[in-house]
Amino acid sequence: MTLRIYNTLTRRKDEFVPLHNKNVGIYVCGPTVYDHAHLGHAKSYVSFDVVVRYLRYLDYKVRYVQNITDVGHLTDNADQGEDKILKRAQMERVEPMELVEKYVRSYFEDMDAMGVIRPDISPRATGHIPEQIELVKTLVEKGYAYEVAGSVYFDVHKFEGYGKLSGRKLEELEAGARIEVNPEKRHPADFALWKHALPGHLMRWKSLWGEGFPGWHLECSAMSMRYLGETLDIHGGGLDNVFPHHECEVAQSEAANGKQFVRHWMHNNMVTVNGQKMSKSLGNFVTLKDAFKKYSPLTIRFFILSTRYNSPLDYSDDALGAANKGIERLHNTVLNVLEKLKDAPSGEADIFKEKIDEYKALFLEAMDDDFNTPGAIAALFDFSREVNTLLSAGQRVSRETLEDINSFYSQFGGEILGIVPESFDFKMAGRSDIEDALISLLSETRNKLRAAKHWQLSDDIRSELTKLGIILEDKPEGTTWKKG
Amino acid sequence: MTLRIYNTLTRRKDEFVPLHNKNVGIYVCGPTVYDHAHLGHAKSYVSFDVVVRYLRYLDYKVRYVQNITDVGHLTDNADQGEDKILKRAQMERVEPMELVEKYVRSYFEDMDAMGVIRPDISPRATGHIPEQIELVKTLVEKGYAYEVAGSVYFDVHKFEGYGKLSGRKLEELEAGARIEVNPEKRHPADFALWKHALPGHLMRWKSLWGEGFPGWHLECSAMSMRYLGETLDIHGGGLDNVFPHHECEVAQSEAANGKQFVRHWMHNNMVTVNGQKMSKSLGNFVTLKDAFKKYSPLTIRFFILSTRYNSPLDYSDDALGAANKGIERLHNTVLNVLEKLKDAPSGEADIFKEKIDEYKALFLEAMDDDFNTPGAIAALFDFSREVNTLLSAGQRVSRETLEDINSFYSQFGGEILGIVPESFDFKMAGRSDIEDALISLLSETRNKLRAAKHWQLSDDIRSELTKLGIILEDKPEGTTWKKG
Repeated sequence: MTLRIYNTLTRRKDEFVPLHNKNVGIYVCGPTVYDHAHLGHAKSYVSFDVVVRYLRYLDYKVRYVQNITDVGHLTDNADQGEDKILKRAQMERVEPMELVEKYVRSYFEDMDAMGVIRPDISPRATGHIPEQIELVKTLVEKGYAYEVAGSVYFDVHKFEGYGKLSGRKLEELEAGARIEVNPEKRHPADFALWKHALPGHLMRWKSLWGEGFPGWHLECSAMSMRYLGETLDIHGGGLDNVFPHHECEVAQSEAANGKQFVRHWMHNNMVTVNGQKMSKSLGNFVTLKDAFKKYSPLTIRFFILSTRYNSPLDYSDDALGAANKGIERLHNTVLNVLEKLKDAPSGEADIFKEKIDEYKALFLEAMDDDFNTPGAIAALFDFSREVNTLLSAGQRVSRETLEDINSFYSQFGGEILGIVPESFDFKMAGRSDIEDALISLLSETRNKLRAAKHWQLSDDIRSELTKLGIILEDKPEGTTWKKG
Repeated sequence: MTLRIYNTLTRRKDEFVPLHNKNVGIYVCGPTVYDHAHLGHAKSYVSFDVVVRYLRYLDYKVRYVQNITDVGHLTDNADQGEDKILKRAQMERVEPMELVEKYVRSYFEDMDAMGVIRPDISPRATGHIPEQIELVKTLVEKGYAYEVAGSVYFDVHKFEGYGKLSGRKLEELEAGARIEVNPEKRHPADFALWKHALPGHLMRWKSLWGEGFPGWHLECSAMSMRYLGETLDIHGGGLDNVFPHHECEVAQSEAANGKQFVRHWMHNNMVTVNGQKMSKSLGNFVTLKDAFKKYSPLTIRFFILSTRYNSPLDYSDDALGAANKGIERLHNTVLNVLEKLKDAPSGEADIFKEKIDEYKALFLEAMDDDFNTPGAIAALFDFSREVNTLLSAGQRVSRETLEDINSFYSQFGGEILGIVPESFDFKMAGRSDIEDALISLLSETRNKLRAAKHWQLSDDIRSELTKLGIILEDKPEGTTWKKG
């Protein structure tokens, strides 16, 4: 089996071959931390979390770098407008770095809740100003960039491959009316590497070209180079970053180093809400903190992974409700297995071994096909159906079989997909052992009272339990209970 | 009432007057993140957490900056030795920034557990290289610093006030044999602002003096200046940082700005273990993660606050055991108040108003006296004794009285000292409402069975509960229960 990844650069699924044997360097564009994270962030970072988890499962030694943008991202992609961080800091009347701390914390809080494993390095743009200035200097020296009035621009006509990632042609770009004309630029498609800071602009650093701040595209080239070298195995990000962000990264990095910048470009698709693009202006913007009020973070994670990372994902209450039911079903099966394990007979062979091998192959085949998580989840669910049949057949299942089933869930549902909690126990399903034991004792006491025809007392127990939301149900095979 | 703070600089308790009305800028030296945090860190950051909480209680608008040292802190204070981060990164075979991420995360995890409120800004030394280079440049230009072979040193003889914070005299320092002689230094007491990086030194930045890295003292001056201005209201840190770290900060900051650097210098004392200095070489080094295995983070917090921040604190199992009992006693009283509030009669006056005013005055008087937390805790405990007397007197206490008592705990024990959890409810004490209700129902059922002389059934309930660790106790006033 070979892992194949769809590569935005080559427009086909390429076999994954890292530059240095089993070492993989991966860089994913992180959030611009001026507000709480929304569902679009979740789609991107949950998807790449599974990419990293799967690579580690395949025994690659992965260094995962995901930056924090805390300067230079302007409200307008064409190098105009205000700095997003500064604008919001002025609104909240705090120092920009206070704003950054607040939203970095909020971001990781949400990611942690969804079981997204932290990146190995989370470098910040403001923390790498010298590296960025150095890169601009190199580009000016090599003739790819020019200075005008304290700002430095990249001359896209000097770099032959400009457009190769996004497939855009320079002539079309320049003819396009959507690019605002900046009189400082030699060509409309040139982009800022360094911006002159006007008086009153709080975030500013000294440079060879006067006081200013880095252009947004610059940080990713400078920081990925610092921590992963000049050529990355994988660079990931949202589809909306292919142009101009990643196209500019390619240009400035390859112009500076004379080497291929990225071997595999991966882009996750967008989130829509009830079929419409999610945006602040449409008012259908869903922050994760709001989404978590209605659905558990694990349900959101499961929902995201039930669609391919590079397909769009539509958020609706119906879809989330279905995801919620789906993950509950999966968890119930896992919990049943754990429950049976408590008093399973041991010393017998695993009668499920072949099934496990079969579903493992299906799971891995799906993952190897460009991280096809819906396919992998389908394998997990088909497997669960077989497990449920086995458990409800009435015969006692051996400890060996149950343990193998359990490892399957732990490795594929847990370690790789992250949709079965690692430390799964009954508390996480909302029950506690002591509570269960108390309810059982009450139910048994009631049955004894009924057998002794003490109707009043037995009815009292039932009605008191009902008040607590616990419903007793008398069935031919005995009394069961559920929470209302 | 006026807040007075012991000032290491003036060697007396000074009245606290911030530079800008109700705005307070406070800077505390943060951890060098090359290992897990230990008890010494807890003593410092819990103490300053209460300083910040109390200033906020007094309606100051506080900006709390606490740095992360991720470069430049050498294994030897006299500008020699290896970089602590680099050394450990080589040992763990990771990129230095991976190491930093790991231990920053670990640090905040431990602090969060103890209820230490995060600083408003946590700037990193590597994130402020341009600011540090700029400061060195200013000091060279003003004649306070000199370059030798790519390193820059501060000339302590040029700065008149050198020694004023620590009280050390330059002549004595220079006569002292403990300072290693660095041939590049003009005087033995000079200190490094910028160090030349030898080949192979991974953490290096270009500067006017070639590739190198900042001296440890430099970062705090550069970052405090950036986020709090040239004069700080409060600068805090451990007593072992008075010399050389803070002495050097004073010299370089005041030499550069020509202004007083810090108005109030606060230093917390050290932690000893069973009377001995805590150190790695003595093998009595206690990390917080290890301490948390034996004691709850809140017990550690309470233990720290039962001694003044500027007195030494001796860690021993006896002392921690006592702290554990103390905080449990306090929490039991608070829980009792909450319990009584469930069905307290309302519409009556607060009969405890005067007592509350009295203890509030005692509490604030202690805090105003240089953050005397043991005094404040004593007030809280004396108050609790009166509350316990009131609650056990048998008469029904009004909702108004209980609510006022509850606010007292929430504000002084919770908001200021952080030793009563904000969201205190029965779950945190290990009980759950539903569990309580189920046990009550079982107990009542048993009493009804006994009344009807169904001894077998009633005994069954009792013995089943005992198996679950719940002990029923029949008393004249009714049946109570406790957990074994």
